[in-house]
Amino acid sequence: MWLARIRVMLKKGVLDPQGKAVLGALQTQGYKRVQEVRVGKYLEVRLHSMGRIEAEAEVEEMCRRLLSNPVIEEFSFELDELPESAER
Amino acid sequence: MWLARIRVMLKKGVLDPQGKAVLGALQTQGYKRVQEVRVGKYLEVRLHSMGRIEAEAEVEEMCRRLLSNPVIEEFSFELDELPESAER
Repeated sequence: MWLARIRVMLKKGVLDPQGKAVLGALQTQGYKRVQEVRVGKYLEVRLHSMGRIEAEAEVEEMCRRLLSNPVIEEFSFELDELPESAER
Repeated sequence: MWLARIRVMLKKGVLDPQGKAVLGALQTQGYKRVQEVRVGKYLEVRLHSMGRIEAEAEVEEMCRRLLSNPVIEEFSFELDELPESAER
């Protein structure tokens, strides 16, 4: 069993209105030292066992094709093997 | 300058319809080995320089008070010091 922890963020330079809104809210609440906020998605994907290279390729392809918009977003992920007891 | 990388996830046991929808989409697209998907938020927060302990306490408080809903969500974060050249 593999666990992929995937982060999807807007590319640098792409306007992030949600991040700006969170920044404004934090500063209004007194967190004056916050300088910038960027908001993205975080996904945890569990996959049935296969080889690491195969699993990496599959996660990479899922991210590229379905989980991110490559025009405005970029992604990164870590892949960890879970003990078989986590297999359900 | 500090960079906090924050993940906010629904607590285990809380229904995640967005994750279910992504799981369905992935399986429909042929990714049959995907077993579970959970969707959360990812935030990158940049803060002006202060001590590490102070920065950690501030990020923790922001997460608890504003960035997550403690009834249904849990958060975790890493805090990295950025070189001063990243200060703007």
